[in-house]
Amino acid sequence: MIDPVRRISLDDIEQARGRIASTVLRTPLVRLDLGKDGPDIRLKLENLQPTNAYKIRGATNAVANLSDEQRARGVWTISAGNAGQGVAYAARKFGIAATVVAIETAPQTKLDRMRALGAAIVPVSYDDAWKAAESHTFPGLEGTFIHPFDNHDFIAGHATMGLEILEDAPDVHTVITAIGGGGLITGVGSAIKAKRPDVPVLGAEPETAAPYALSLRDGGPRKFAEWQASFVDGAGGKSVTERMWQRMRPVTNGSITVTLDQTREAMWLIAEKTRTIAEGAGALALAAALTGEAGEGPIVCVVSGGNIDLGKFAELVVT
Amino acid sequence: MIDPVRRISLDDIEQARGRIASTVLRTPLVRLDLGKDGPDIRLKLENLQPTNAYKIRGATNAVANLSDEQRARGVWTISAGNAGQGVAYAARKFGIAATVVAIETAPQTKLDRMRALGAAIVPVSYDDAWKAAESHTFPGLEGTFIHPFDNHDFIAGHATMGLEILEDAPDVHTVITAIGGGGLITGVGSAIKAKRPDVPVLGAEPETAAPYALSLRDGGPRKFAEWQASFVDGAGGKSVTERMWQRMRPVTNGSITVTLDQTREAMWLIAEKTRTIAEGAGALALAAALTGEAGEGPIVCVVSGGNIDLGKFAELVVT
Repeated sequence: MIDPVRRISLDDIEQARGRIASTVLRTPLVRLDLGKDGPDIRLKLENLQPTNAYKIRGATNAVANLSDEQRARGVWTISAGNAGQGVAYAARKFGIAATVVAIETAPQTKLDRMRALGAAIVPVSYDDAWKAAESHTFPGLEGTFIHPFDNHDFIAGHATMGLEILEDAPDVHTVITAIGGGGLITGVGSAIKAKRPDVPVLGAEPETAAPYALSLRDGGPRKFAEWQASFVDGAGGKSVTERMWQRMRPVTNGSITVTLDQTREAMWLIAEKTRTIAEGAGALALAAALTGEAGEGPIVCVVSGGNIDLGKFAELVVT
Repeated sequence: MIDPVRRISLDDIEQARGRIASTVLRTPLVRLDLGKDGPDIRLKLENLQPTNAYKIRGATNAVANLSDEQRARGVWTISAGNAGQGVAYAARKFGIAATVVAIETAPQTKLDRMRALGAAIVPVSYDDAWKAAESHTFPGLEGTFIHPFDNHDFIAGHATMGLEILEDAPDVHTVITAIGGGGLITGVGSAIKAKRPDVPVLGAEPETAAPYALSLRDGGPRKFAEWQASFVDGAGGKSVTERMWQRMRPVTNGSITVTLDQTREAMWLIAEKTRTIAEGAGALALAAALTGEAGEGPIVCVVSGGNIDLGKFAELVVT
């Protein structure tokens, strides 16, 4: 029933770019000013997207690429918040119904926004959401399922970001993205490896949820037994699935694990220097770059999203 | 001694664009999502500039256009914060010295950043700074003076934003910018009127500092007697000078006065919807659009800057 995993081709990515051009923002790549002796780090500000997260790229491409018949049945997805907003936004654009199986502990900001975009919400526990993501099913839901990361078109949509990065930073040495389900890094990695196989693509995970680092160490997809919830709610999965391992492994070169304090510090730096608000997951890549483990710049860090309650942001970042 | 006022031509603007291209960000124009029945408002996010304010455009163009001899003497400017950062940034780029006559009540963020860019700071009172801006002199300072608003090249640099707005929003009905000294609106207005004279260009001022609205009402440049300091420290002058009146009047169509509460509300909306941090002045144009006085959209509002202490931002915006 589930399509076999296949490589995201440059052609897939270029087609996606055409499909999503009128819906997504071509986000700016901004230089983080760390003084003249600081590393050369540039931030891809996906928190500026209409839904304030990169997921709108994949969601728009996936919905746009459905047949009329598939779209007519409505769409549903599973989400900690950002994928749900992306799918709801794309569904609204096409005038179709969207249902989101949403993790009930998602920030209020994310739940409110999905509803404001017209999505029906089915609240579930984190474990039930993860089970649905692994099995690609959820009892009682009809309509066309759009998987929030294990979906070829979804990932091809994210990959468009990789093309933009190479256009804006032809001198890039390394690209870092957060890892949650693995769709973001697979997309960006697919574009980078297609055009510039010499450029390393690294993941970033919080210490509380780092299954990809564990999987790389063990040489196969693993569950992260010590998983803990944190303010980094938009990244950090409980496990790497077999299918996502197949997708990620060929287009990535490693992973950096960061502490929650390093992540908070990176959120502050993004606010202080770029005047944008990043959620925890959105700051992981910068936190990883600042460890020094990614080597010399230019390093491009994807700021994947900014959907955090403003009160929580102030509590974490403003001292 | 002071160059006579002359019109900013399209040629001036296009030349400026070439000069500043490698230094400034081509900022995105983002749609503010106010629901399907809300007005069509788009934000030009100048708070994403390397110095987090539009002034870098004019400062870079002005410094780039000096002769080697003029540059060799170093440059100085007068600033409430954003112009000083712009000039300091441009001076650093050209490897020359910069001095900023800075209003001593400027936010710490702005003063720290000017110093971090290598500028020498001469702290003065608001009144003394305004006197220097009117007289184009300050006792004891040598080097080449770059006026923060009453300077042809400075304004031509800001005008580049107008070209970008028309490229990204060819369907625009109205453009709104904040008014402080008047350089921003003169620049943007010059570009808009050169290419699309049918598009109204409106100013936005806080009720505590609205000399342009008063000047328009009286038909000549006026001092705003009831001026009060507020968190809108990057806009709202004490008066419209005769020279700035000559510059602004031909390229603007009116002005909207907003309350401090409306400004604060617009700051919140920018943070909530675009995940960016605007200073008070940066939110004036949106506050003006939301009064309804600017008519139907698409309305483009310039978010002129984001230089506010994060603690102050949280205090004003996060409830």
